Amino acid sequence: MAQRDVSGTVAEPPAVPASELFSEERSAEVVAASFAGTRDPRLHRVLTSLVRHLHDFVKDVELTDEEWAAAIGFLTATGQTCTATRQEFILLSDVLGISMLVETLNNRAGDDLTESTVEGPFHVVASPRRELGASIAEDGRGTPCLVTGSVAGPDGRPVPGAEVDVWQADDEGFYDVQRADERAHGNLRGLFTADAEGRFRFRSIVPRYYPIPADGPVGRLLEATSRHPNRPAHIHFEVSAPGYRTVTTHLFVAGTPFIDSDAVFGVKPSLVREFPEVDDPARAEQAGLPNPFRTVHFDVVLSPADDEGVR
Amino acid sequence: MAQRDVSGTVAEPPAVPASELFSEERSAEVVAASFAGTRDPRLHRVLTSLVRHLHDFVKDVELTDEEWAAAIGFLTATGQTCTATRQEFILLSDVLGISMLVETLNNRAGDDLTESTVEGPFHVVASPRRELGASIAEDGRGTPCLVTGSVAGPDGRPVPGAEVDVWQADDEGFYDVQRADERAHGNLRGLFTADAEGRFRFRSIVPRYYPIPADGPVGRLLEATSRHPNRPAHIHFEVSAPGYRTVTTHLFVAGTPFIDSDAVFGVKPSLVREFPEVDDPARAEQAGLPNPFRTVHFDVVLSPADDEGVR
Repeated sequence: MAQRDVSGTVAEPPAVPASELFSEERSAEVVAASFAGTRDPRLHRVLTSLVRHLHDFVKDVELTDEEWAAAIGFLTATGQTCTATRQEFILLSDVLGISMLVETLNNRAGDDLTESTVEGPFHVVASPRRELGASIAEDGRGTPCLVTGSVAGPDGRPVPGAEVDVWQADDEGFYDVQRADERAHGNLRGLFTADAEGRFRFRSIVPRYYPIPADGPVGRLLEATSRHPNRPAHIHFEVSAPGYRTVTTHLFVAGTPFIDSDAVFGVKPSLVREFPEVDDPARAEQAGLPNPFRTVHFDVVLSPADDEGVR
Repeated sequence: MAQRDVSGTVAEPPAVPASELFSEERSAEVVAASFAGTRDPRLHRVLTSLVRHLHDFVKDVELTDEEWAAAIGFLTATGQTCTATRQEFILLSDVLGISMLVETLNNRAGDDLTESTVEGPFHVVASPRRELGASIAEDGRGTPCLVTGSVAGPDGRPVPGAEVDVWQADDEGFYDVQRADERAHGNLRGLFTADAEGRFRFRSIVPRYYPIPADGPVGRLLEATSRHPNRPAHIHFEVSAPGYRTVTTHLFVAGTPFIDSDAVFGVKPSLVREFPEVDDPARAEQAGLPNPFRTVHFDVVLSPADDEGVR
């Protein structure tokens, strides 16, 4: 129950006297005026724009009482579906293309820079720190794959010691945090430090395409709109280094189902890679993988942190 | 944890193949296209408009990653603040003027019809059915008030048997459901049936202005924007009858603090009433109230349900 000093609220006059009462015609202006006392100019700008666009939407469709009530119920259920390892509002943002739009606006890559894509809702546990060359596939299930790559600046100069955080779905399309057994957490995640030449390598498996969690409100939205919930197979990367802008991105598996209809709109052509098979016992032994195995290579190009010109 | 037949998801082709990949320039169009398979045309219309306006907003302010993350956190906390007796998303809708806009769009009153206003978040428990003339002030605290009124159609013809559901804050500005003691639930609520001439009357107290619950995410939003959380004093009414459109509205107390700056934008001039004092022992005894007491009168005019012309 609310506890506050009621008598204290009458002493102060309204911070923003709104002498104009609400009207359909001037609804957004009247509400925006109520934010006139906001001290943070950026917050004022964001909220007044939000109000204008939301009111425009409500007027455009002439939202009914029943639709408004359904929206309140949907948003409430979305919030209440969130847990420590499930973020239903990020899923909602993802399937409405908002996540991808924000990511794109804030990471307008120059021609040679690695493009970003959505972080997704599964970066919710810390990746175990692992040695270069180690395997992130703790349970050994799936098609073995050697992942190699490098981190460099736009001038081609290597970025030694860059941090490479990776996470991916397993061969059944599940992330570790979707497994009931908490001991599985950390499987198919790894935090690597690039070597003196900015190179990294690790062993994994070929990820599988998968549906985003569809047993909640967002799943019901997709079902009501005949949208499938699937994401094409990919490995997540978050690559960071002092002096550079962190890039959050994926490598997509060329030819994976749903590459043309990602439920969260994350696919960019520059991020799609072949994962060719290698059938060579000597190379397999060197990599520490059974023969044959698949491979993929990812050369990451970071933007200097102070390079505002490319934003 | 999510449980679904992963293998089942590969058999069906995407319901809506989106051959065009996401781009900043065409973000709203690409996402809207993903909804092309929606069978309900109204749902399709609402969602594609929502996507267009949300993307316009994000682009207008160039929402940053940090602001997006703050929005996700805010929406999640808002959902998780909701309980059986607290609806934080309605509060959010209220303080952004969305509730008032939806109410206004859906109840464009003709000249003589009673205007509507927001329902608010406190209509969450059923009002006890009471006899005409009964008191809704179960604890007897506050300034006594006799509420009288009538329900009629636009032709002035009475609506016998109309249902009049009322609820209000107490003399400290709290609704019953904000009190820890559940036995208080029902206090200052009542469901009345108008008599053969469409008249109703009940005893109550003069309501107090009050702050909306400000100890949650919506309260933090108001604080960050220097907005006060108060609503001018009012009595809620929901009046319904077969063959008529239900009207959800308030009576505001003339001269109450915050009448010009309602935190939820609910004030309409036609809904403001004087609550004059009566000092007359005979009338007090007749009303069953101590002398002196306050009075207010409310003649409600309902729109016929099939009168689409005034919508």
